Formats: sequence, C-alpha cells, structure tokens
Amino acid sequence: MEVKPKASRHLFLIRHGQYVVGPTDEERFLTPLGREQAKLTGQRLKELGFDYNLVLRSTMTRATETAMIIQDVLGETKTKSCDLIREGAPIKPEPPVSHWKPEVYQFYQDGARIEAAFRKYFHRADATQEYDTYEVIVCHANVIRYCVCRALQLPPEAWLRISLHNGSITWLEIKPSGNVVLRGLGDVGHMPRNKMSTS
Amino acid sequence: MEVKPKASRHLFLIRHGQYVVGPTDEERFLTPLGREQAKLTGQRLKELGFDYNLVLRSTMTRATETAMIIQDVLGETKTKSCDLIREGAPIKPEPPVSHWKPEVYQFYQDGARIEAAFRKYFHRADATQEYDTYEVIVCHANVIRYCVCRALQLPPEAWLRISLHNGSITWLEIKPSGNVVLRGLGDVGHMPRNKMSTS
Repeated sequence: MEVKPKASRHLFLIRHGQYVVGPTDEERFLTPLGREQAKLTGQRLKELGFDYNLVLRSTMTRATETAMIIQDVLGETKTKSCDLIREGAPIKPEPPVSHWKPEVYQFYQDGARIEAAFRKYFHRADATQEYDTYEVIVCHANVIRYCVCRALQLPPEAWLRISLHNGSITWLEIKPSGNVVLRGLGDVGHMPRNKMSTS
Repeated sequence: MEVKPKASRHLFLIRHGQYVVGPTDEERFLTPLGREQAKLTGQRLKELGFDYNLVLRSTMTRATETAMIIQDVLGETKTKSCDLIREGAPIKPEPPVSHWKPEVYQFYQDGARIEAAFRKYFHRADATQEYDTYEVIVCHANVIRYCVCRALQLPPEAWLRISLHNGSITWLEIKPSGNVVLRGLGDVGHMPRNKMSTS
C-alpha cells in the first residue's frame, strides 16, 4: 500500500541579528541592535500565531544568541543545534562580486556541508505526519539564500542576487506533493526603518 | 566619451489589496480589508523614509484604488497609469498547478505584454541620473512574480513557486552595473496576522 504525505512543512528561515566583527566566532556576538532585532523577530513569529514545533539553530555564536532571544519570546519550544547550517561559501556566485572573493578551498569545503544541510532539512513531510508543522531555523544569510534557490529548483549560483536584512524572516512551505512555495523572503516589515541593517 | 551610470534604481513592487470577486474589472474593487491593507502598506513605505519619485499603477480597478490610498499616505507624488502591468498569464508555470489553467491564447496574448512591461520598467539608471531613485509600482501578483524572475535572470517559468500576500512589498534594486539585488520579496511584516490575505 502506497502511503502519501498529506501535511505541509512550513520553514521560517531567520537571519541572525547584527553582530560585532571580531577575530573568532566567540567574539562575534550580537550588538545591542542585533539583540533588539532578534526580539522583534521573535515577537513577529509569536504574532503570526503558529504552534512552532522546533527551533533549529546554527552553532555559531550570533545564531545561537538570536535563537535564544527568539525562544525567550516564543516560550518553551523544542530546540536543536546543528553545525551543518553554520555560515560559509556555498557555491561560487554568478555574477561574481568584487567585495567577496573566498578561496576555492572554502567553496569546496563549505559547499558540500551546506548542500548536506539542505538535503537534511528541506524535504516534504513524512507520510505519518498528520498536521502541518512550523519550524524556525536560525542561521545565516548565505545558507538561507543557497537553500532557497535549491528548494525552488533555481540555479543555486544565483544566491548572491538576494540580500537579507538581519533578523529577516523567509517563509517556505513544502507541500505534500513536494512542491515548494516561497511565501516571503527577507521580510523585515516588523522592524522600524532605524532598526534595519544588513551587516 | 563613454558615460557610465552611477546611481541605483529602487523598485518597490506592491500587490494590490484584497478585492471583491466580480464579473468585470470595475466590479472587482477593494474590500474594506483590502483598503486597510493598502493603508498599512502606504504607512510602511512612508516609514521607510525614501523620497519616492513615482507611483506607477496598473489601470485595473483594484490596483488603481490601492495606489490612490498609498498616495494619500505618501502625500503628493508623481503618478502614472499603465496598461502593460495589468494582470495576466505571463508564461506557463513549471511545475503546472491544478487550480489554475488558463487557455493557451491567454499566455500568448498576456505573455508578450507583460514581457514588454518588464523591458520598459526594469533597467538600470540612465547615465545622467545623479542620485538613487525610488519608484513604487502597484500592480498584480503574476506581473510581480514574473518580473522578479526576469530581473534576477532566473527561469521565468518558476514564477508560480512564489506566493504574494495582498499589499506585500517586494524591493528590487538595480545597480549602476546592471546587477540586480532582491532586498525583500512579499514583505508583509507591517501587517498584523489578522490583516494578512492572499486572495
């Protein structure tokens, strides 16, 4: 007997808040503005009113901090940390940009890891899933942009044609058919203009 | 002497508010919620604080109404109406969807018109343009989705993988180089959950 999926998976991809540019990951923590952005984003997620099943977060400091602030607002939620969704260089961007030129080995190393993250987290619901699920994934601009291109089956090298504000919300729905719908990308309408930043 | 463009064009693509499903365009006017959405979107555009150079609007009733409400909030702005950005069937969507199947002649007629709109409005700044410009384009979900794919040089038949809320703001920047940056798509963070709708 064939069993078909019947529920949707909703993924809310959140870019971390603004952070201090330090030499190591531990020293790259959120600025006061970054903490405020995380709080505003948590409040928006709460206001959207979904029953969030999971907050998945990158193990990098700025993502962990952002996720913890969001969880403070949402109340008790299941949490998971994951190294696969740490920031990196997913694939050489097309067109190339002059201000960002990682070494080839970075694409080689990060690319497979971020693709592994995509395959792990971006899939339709299991056939046993009865109701729609709502997951929050707190991670990084490059990871989100690459995964959105992949999920929509667009050329992934287009990822750098997208810019994401700190604390922005990208809402993807994966339907039972496997079709993917992008319901919003880089949404920051919940932040006043003077709280918006991209770096 | 070669003269190079030096300013960016920012396009804010707005989907009209919710409307009454009537038999003719004139009878498809905004619902009370649709008018409220338009007002919230106008307030958000105002709060973003840009000096808007133009409000371009589709000649369809729901877009005209939405634009007029936005202009009421923004104060005096230059206005233009255009038939090219009326709603239509831009190109056969891939993957196909079961709930929307226009006749082939519709794609044939609307496709060229919407492509003409794209070529008319989506281009880099003229070399004589000294400062960045900010234009608001109030039109329709299909037109916006198709033009976003085209502007990002993505396969245009992917347009139906995107869903846009009524009154949502899609922010595209066209750089002097001709490179395009999508700074947000379908943003409705300025609307409380109970004011959000897609049809």
